[in-house]
Amino acid sequence: MQRSLVLLSYLVLLFALAASLSAQEKKSVESSGSPPAPMVSPEVHADGSVTFRVRAPNAKAAKLELEGADPIDMQKNDRNIWRVTTGPLPPDYYGYSFAIDGVRTLDASNHSLVPNLLTPDNFVHVLGPSSLPWEVNDVAHGEIHHHFYRSTVVDDERDYYVYTPPSYHNSGQRYPVLYLLHGFSDDASAWTAVGRMNVIFDNLIAEGKIKPMIVVMPLGYGTMEMIRLGWDTWNHPDVRDTNFKRFTETLLTEVMPRVEGEYRVVKDRNSRAIAGLSMGGSESLLTGLNHLDQFTWIGAFSSGGIPEDFDKDFPLLNAKSAQQLHLLWIACGTEDHLITVNRNLRAWLKSKGIQPTEIETPGMHTWMVWRRNLVEFAPLLFK
Amino acid sequence: MQRSLVLLSYLVLLFALAASLSAQEKKSVESSGSPPAPMVSPEVHADGSVTFRVRAPNAKAAKLELEGADPIDMQKNDRNIWRVTTGPLPPDYYGYSFAIDGVRTLDASNHSLVPNLLTPDNFVHVLGPSSLPWEVNDVAHGEIHHHFYRSTVVDDERDYYVYTPPSYHNSGQRYPVLYLLHGFSDDASAWTAVGRMNVIFDNLIAEGKIKPMIVVMPLGYGTMEMIRLGWDTWNHPDVRDTNFKRFTETLLTEVMPRVEGEYRVVKDRNSRAIAGLSMGGSESLLTGLNHLDQFTWIGAFSSGGIPEDFDKDFPLLNAKSAQQLHLLWIACGTEDHLITVNRNLRAWLKSKGIQPTEIETPGMHTWMVWRRNLVEFAPLLFK
Repeated sequence: MQRSLVLLSYLVLLFALAASLSAQEKKSVESSGSPPAPMVSPEVHADGSVTFRVRAPNAKAAKLELEGADPIDMQKNDRNIWRVTTGPLPPDYYGYSFAIDGVRTLDASNHSLVPNLLTPDNFVHVLGPSSLPWEVNDVAHGEIHHHFYRSTVVDDERDYYVYTPPSYHNSGQRYPVLYLLHGFSDDASAWTAVGRMNVIFDNLIAEGKIKPMIVVMPLGYGTMEMIRLGWDTWNHPDVRDTNFKRFTETLLTEVMPRVEGEYRVVKDRNSRAIAGLSMGGSESLLTGLNHLDQFTWIGAFSSGGIPEDFDKDFPLLNAKSAQQLHLLWIACGTEDHLITVNRNLRAWLKSKGIQPTEIETPGMHTWMVWRRNLVEFAPLLFK
Repeated sequence: MQRSLVLLSYLVLLFALAASLSAQEKKSVESSGSPPAPMVSPEVHADGSVTFRVRAPNAKAAKLELEGADPIDMQKNDRNIWRVTTGPLPPDYYGYSFAIDGVRTLDASNHSLVPNLLTPDNFVHVLGPSSLPWEVNDVAHGEIHHHFYRSTVVDDERDYYVYTPPSYHNSGQRYPVLYLLHGFSDDASAWTAVGRMNVIFDNLIAEGKIKPMIVVMPLGYGTMEMIRLGWDTWNHPDVRDTNFKRFTETLLTEVMPRVEGEYRVVKDRNSRAIAGLSMGGSESLLTGLNHLDQFTWIGAFSSGGIPEDFDKDFPLLNAKSAQQLHLLWIACGTEDHLITVNRNLRAWLKSKGIQPTEIETPGMHTWMVWRRNLVEFAPLLFK
């Protein structure tokens, strides 16, 4: 009854608001008169080149900011449309935005959006052959489950995603688990929405290249102060330290028990992996290497963000740790400026008697690198 | 091996691309120098008024397009920031975009995005009391499962979402099912991402106001030509007819068997409901009223898009149909121009001896209306 009154009062307020405004009903299915034909952007050509377009009648300059590339100047035509056509791009998914008179601007003509807590982007798909592991094929598909919980560790409402392989619902078997972590500024949906991990796993499972497994993708922040401070957060060592500490705590004491309580998973260190990209790579190393009783398969893709004081970061590591680990896989793109810290980390690990798998690939700090990292890393797990 | 070669060749291409460009690594966690402090937009004030800001140095005009309101002029300050502050808004979620020199533009300062296949928006949350059913409370939360399948009816890869109530995983019981349909231009995530159905159901279940149920939210198009044609699609009766026909077919022969094969649901007409908004309202009526052997609880929120030839739309209806139906709930906002067709439909139904529940509320063709529709409709189901 009380809710009804509250609802009623809001409806009255809403009515007052609506009455003061005339009938704009842009989503009506019967709008009178046809709106102008939408401008096409992006337009992918047969050779993989892409034309981007944005209308900005009074702008003096516009640039395309394409993932993994320097800003590219756009030219204005006589209909006030700025445009640029790239050279042929290798088939992949590319994030992008525009800079119009220096202002970051999304492509409102393109409904494909990259979720991100600081810099949401659009993306464009340059279609490739079905043999590319991130292309959807006519194979059995897993599911993505979105979970919500109240974290007492972080004191907020948060979420995680769980990928279940295609066989999950028709088998009684238990599965190993990979905890897969996103990077700074991403949200928990990054590995599915951008990284295409579910498509990649569907394909690799169909080909028999990876063991069917559960993949858990939690929100990767130990404090949301990391996001409130924006990129400046990395100048706040106290926030960064709290972030890493509390992330490990919410993962081990809140997410993992929930997952192991609900899903048919093998609950032992030999069937538990942790991997991530960038900030999530560091979290995988910090959580994994400091909890070898819990994780024995560890991956770090382009990891960064922790102090280069490895003795302090990983106080428990010694030559005996090597026997406990099934896999320590450390990858970075050679054009990523994090390559140096990754090389230093590998050297330090070796000085401790631990030999990581050392992966250097062409590429920068981009999803093009991380999708390929996942394709190479996943087949090594649980074997 | 073949995939390795393909991968290698792409990596080489990628390297060539990267090498031709200098190191822009905007997502690096160690970028040198701090970027400028982000401009805050939107900024919600204590009284519910909201300030929107967008930077556009050379624009001659900027407007705010807020869901349910006429465009509102923005003013430029001396830092080239266009801004406007609304009056106090009732607590809710509001979609919005900007029109800069007449060009639809998203708010790149706001990571909250409304997915939509034609007109993605941003949204702003004006926080309300915890008694509002769309506010997250410290109650048990259900899950949202994202499913993928190949449709032979429509001949494409598509998806649906399933909400499972909090008790689902700890009970052996079977649940009734609500099929809940989105509107034209939305995608399958609309009812969760924008409509907040999972939050609403979590709250109403915690209060004992609704029966715990499974909610299935399929992609609502029988042909994607509906989206390729944009808003002009409504001038193509053949496309529209194919859309409605094939949607019913994929729902009944592809989605429903999958859901009933995987989830513990009651498989009978008395435990099956169908409801939707706008185009999805019409789909609920067309599918439901033409399949009373399958559905006995039907809801249509602001429905539209079908020809006003009801004898032809619903050829099977007669006075006996009234006995078969548990609920036929037809709602529309009085400021929605679809109010007329909804009134006509209700009159026609009554002429056939069928008495629908007739709901008219203040409001336009907006999510503010549909969230409240769901809150009123759901408690009536399966009782």
